Amino acid sequence: MLRLLLPVSLAISVSVAHAQTSPDDSVTLRKLANEVLTHSTAYANLKVLTKTIGGRLAGSPQMPRAEQWGLKALKAAGADTVYLQECMVPHWVRGEQEEVRIISKRRDFVPPLQVLALGNSVASDSSGVTAPVLEVGSFDELEARKKEVKGKIVFYNYHFNPTFIKTFHAYGDAVRYRVNGASRAAKYGALAVIVRSMSHGANNFPHTGAMRYDEAYPKIPAVAIGLEDADRLSDRLKDDKDMQIYLHTSPKFLPDTIGHNVIAELRGTEHPEEVITVGGHLDSWDVNEGAHDDGTGCVQSIEIIRAFKALGIRPKRTIRIVLFANEENGTRGARKYAEAAKAAANERHIFALESDAGGFTPRGFALSMPAEKRAKILSWKPLFKPYGLCDFDEVGGGTDVGELNEALGTPMGELSPDSQRYFDLHHAANDVFEAVNKREMELGAVGMAGLVYLIDKYGL
Amino acid sequence: MLRLLLPVSLAISVSVAHAQTSPDDSVTLRKLANEVLTHSTAYANLKVLTKTIGGRLAGSPQMPRAEQWGLKALKAAGADTVYLQECMVPHWVRGEQEEVRIISKRRDFVPPLQVLALGNSVASDSSGVTAPVLEVGSFDELEARKKEVKGKIVFYNYHFNPTFIKTFHAYGDAVRYRVNGASRAAKYGALAVIVRSMSHGANNFPHTGAMRYDEAYPKIPAVAIGLEDADRLSDRLKDDKDMQIYLHTSPKFLPDTIGHNVIAELRGTEHPEEVITVGGHLDSWDVNEGAHDDGTGCVQSIEIIRAFKALGIRPKRTIRIVLFANEENGTRGARKYAEAAKAAANERHIFALESDAGGFTPRGFALSMPAEKRAKILSWKPLFKPYGLCDFDEVGGGTDVGELNEALGTPMGELSPDSQRYFDLHHAANDVFEAVNKREMELGAVGMAGLVYLIDKYGL
Repeated sequence: MLRLLLPVSLAISVSVAHAQTSPDDSVTLRKLANEVLTHSTAYANLKVLTKTIGGRLAGSPQMPRAEQWGLKALKAAGADTVYLQECMVPHWVRGEQEEVRIISKRRDFVPPLQVLALGNSVASDSSGVTAPVLEVGSFDELEARKKEVKGKIVFYNYHFNPTFIKTFHAYGDAVRYRVNGASRAAKYGALAVIVRSMSHGANNFPHTGAMRYDEAYPKIPAVAIGLEDADRLSDRLKDDKDMQIYLHTSPKFLPDTIGHNVIAELRGTEHPEEVITVGGHLDSWDVNEGAHDDGTGCVQSIEIIRAFKALGIRPKRTIRIVLFANEENGTRGARKYAEAAKAAANERHIFALESDAGGFTPRGFALSMPAEKRAKILSWKPLFKPYGLCDFDEVGGGTDVGELNEALGTPMGELSPDSQRYFDLHHAANDVFEAVNKREMELGAVGMAGLVYLIDKYGL
Repeated sequence: MLRLLLPVSLAISVSVAHAQTSPDDSVTLRKLANEVLTHSTAYANLKVLTKTIGGRLAGSPQMPRAEQWGLKALKAAGADTVYLQECMVPHWVRGEQEEVRIISKRRDFVPPLQVLALGNSVASDSSGVTAPVLEVGSFDELEARKKEVKGKIVFYNYHFNPTFIKTFHAYGDAVRYRVNGASRAAKYGALAVIVRSMSHGANNFPHTGAMRYDEAYPKIPAVAIGLEDADRLSDRLKDDKDMQIYLHTSPKFLPDTIGHNVIAELRGTEHPEEVITVGGHLDSWDVNEGAHDDGTGCVQSIEIIRAFKALGIRPKRTIRIVLFANEENGTRGARKYAEAAKAAANERHIFALESDAGGFTPRGFALSMPAEKRAKILSWKPLFKPYGLCDFDEVGGGTDVGELNEALGTPMGELSPDSQRYFDLHHAANDVFEAVNKREMELGAVGMAGLVYLIDKYGL
C-alpha cells in the first residue's frame, strides 16, 4: 500500500513523445461517461451487496451469498461468460468476546474502550488478561524500554502523520504497528497489545485489519483502539500510575475452507487470447458493510461490462472482470488467479487494473510497468482530464493484481481516488453504503472504463 | 455560478512562457501545508460557528453573533487590525407556515411533501392556495402549454443534468427554474410554483435559495421540493388526474437592517497600499448550519492569517480577510466593500480570492483576469501539484469578489473544490458541521495560503 511518487518532470517528459490517440477516442470516452453517469447500475448493485449481504470475510456465511450476488450482477451486466474459480481461503472468526476495560483503584466510572480484535489475532485466556500498560510512541521507544515490557500490555500510540498529502502514505508509514506490533512486543514478554487505529478520522471507531505473527515468539492477543479512546487512555496513563487493563478477546482460526473468485468476460473479437483483467475484492472485514473496501471496486468493475454492452463496444481483446475472493486476510483468491493465468498457455495477460482504494472521486491511476508502456498510457492523459483524472505519477497497483504482476510480470494499475476520507472508515464499522457518494463512485467507473477502452483499442 | 472551461491547450501554452518561481517557494508552500495540516484551528472554529450559532441569514438574530465570532476568531489568528464595515442588508424571514399537501379524492394517506419556501418569496394567502397542478419539464414546455397555466400551481420538474462532470455546470443549467420560475409562470396566471430542488443527491432534502420576481407580474408563492417527493408527485400526477395541491407558506420581508462585513488585515511591510482580498461569506440560509456554504470559506480565510503568523511570514502587501455580510440574498456586503475600495484613494486592489464552493478537497482555482496575469499564476502550477491542485482552467470568481472585480477590474479567483457532493447539501438542512471533512477543508486552506503567498511575493 505504500506508493512512491515519481518526479513530475519524468512523467511529463515521456508523455509527449508517445502520443497515440484519435479524435474518436475523446468522443467514445464522453459516451462512456454519459452512459455511466446516466444509467449506471453500480450504486444499486452496491446497495444490494452492502445492505442485504453486508460484511463478508472469507469463510463467513456471507461469502457464498456474495459470490452468488456477483454471478448475478455480472450476468445482468451482459458478460459473455460468468464462472466461479475455486480456491481455499482462511477462515478466521472474531468470536463473541471483545472487551477492554480500565481497572483502577480510583473506582471512578470509565466506560469500556471501543476496540476490535485485529484480523488473524489469537484469543486471550478465557478469563482475559489483566496487566499494567506500557505506552510507547514507536518501535524505537519499545526497543529503548524493552526491559519494562515483560508482563505488560503494550499500547502502541503511533499517530498518523497528517503532513502526508495522500493518506495512503500515512497508512504505509503507520501500519507496521498493526501488522508487526504484537510479535515485536511478545519478543520482550508482553501479554497483549493495543494499537492506535490506522486513521486520522475525527471519531472513535476502532479500525481492524490484518496482522501477522512472527513464529519465533509467543502469539499474544492484539486489538485496535479508537482515536478518542487512545487519547483518553494516554492521558489517563500519565496520572493514574497504578491502573491496569483488562483485555478479553476470543478470535480463532477454523480450518481453511472453499471460496471462489467470481469471474466474467467480454470475449475479444480479434485477440481473444490477450486478456485485460479488471477487478476489486469481494471479501471485506466482518465489522462493516465493506462499502468502500471494496464493494465499490466490485461494482465499478461490473459497470465497465454494462457500459460497453450498452454502447455496443465489442472489445478486440478479452476483458475479464474478477471479484477476488480473499484480499483482506490472505490474498488467496489473487494467488489462485495468478497461478491459473500462468498455467493457461493460451492466455497473454497484457494489463491488470484494480480498484481498491475507495469509491471516492478519481484523481488518476497508479501504474507499475516498464517505461515505454507507462509512456503510452501517459500519452492518453489529455483524454482523462475532462473527468478530473490528472494524477498518473504514482507507482502502484492493487494487492490482488499484484499477484499477477509478480507471477507473470503483467503491467498493472490501480484507480487513485481522492484519499482524504478513506482512513476515516477503512476497516471500521462506518464503512457502510451511506458513506458512498453515487457520483464520486460512478466517476471512478468512468475512468476505469476509459482506460480499459484505450488499452483494448491500442494494446499495451 | 456558471463557469466556462477554457481549452486545455491555451492554459498549457501560456504557462511555460512566464515561469517565475524560486526553489524557496516549494519549501515555503510545504511549510504552510505542514502548519495547516498539523495545527489548523479552522475545524475548531467551524464547529463553534456552526454548532453554537448555526444558520445566520442576513437580518437574523444569529447574524450579529456570527459577526462577533468572526472578530474574535480573526483576532485569535493574529491579525494586525480587525474591524466591522457597516452595510444595510435585506431581512427576509421564513415565517411559521410551510406546508404542501396532496388533496385527492382517493382519500389514501399521503404524507405532506417536504418543502422549503424559496428565499425572497412571498407568502400564500393566510388560508393557503388549493389548485390543480401543471407539471412542466422546462420553460419550453411552459410556453407550449401556457394556455393551461391559469389558476394552477406550476411544478417545474427540471432535472440536474448528470453528464456535467463539474456539478456547478448542472447548477448553472438548472437554477433558472428556481430564480425565474415564479414570474415566468405568474405571467400566464399561475397561483404558485413548486420547483424540483437544485440537487442530484440521493435523498429527499428540499434545497432553498434565492429567487427573484419580475415586477411586471404578480408575485406568487414559490417552494422547493425534495427529489424523492418530486418523483413521487410526478408519478402521482400521471394517474390521479383530479388531484390538487394545498400550498401554504408565510415568508415576508421586514425592513432592511444593519449588518457588517467582518474585516481583518495583515498589513504589508513594503507595499501596504497593495491589497490582496481573501474571503468567504458569513451569512447562510436559515435552514441549516451553513457549514460548506460558507462556514468553510470563512475559516479557511482566517486560517491563512494564523498560518502566516505561525511561520513568521510577514507579507509585503496587505492581506485583507473579509467575511462578507450578505451573499445569499442580496450581495449587499460585497457591494459595500467594493464601494469602499473604490473610494479609498490609497488602496490598489491587486487580487481578490474567494472560497465559496464548499470545503471539499481542492482541485485548483477558477481565475478571471487578463491573459498575462493568468499566465503568471499558471506558471506556479507545479508548486500546487503536490497538494492535488491541478485544475486552473476555469474562468470564474466568487459572487462577493465579483463585485470588486466589477467595480475596479480587480483580478479575481475562487478555490475550486471537488464538486461532487456540494449539491447533495447546498442550501438544505444537511449542510451541517458533520458533513465537513477536516483534512479536505484544511487542504483548501493550504491551496489558498499558497496562492496568496505567491501573489504577495511576486505581485500580479
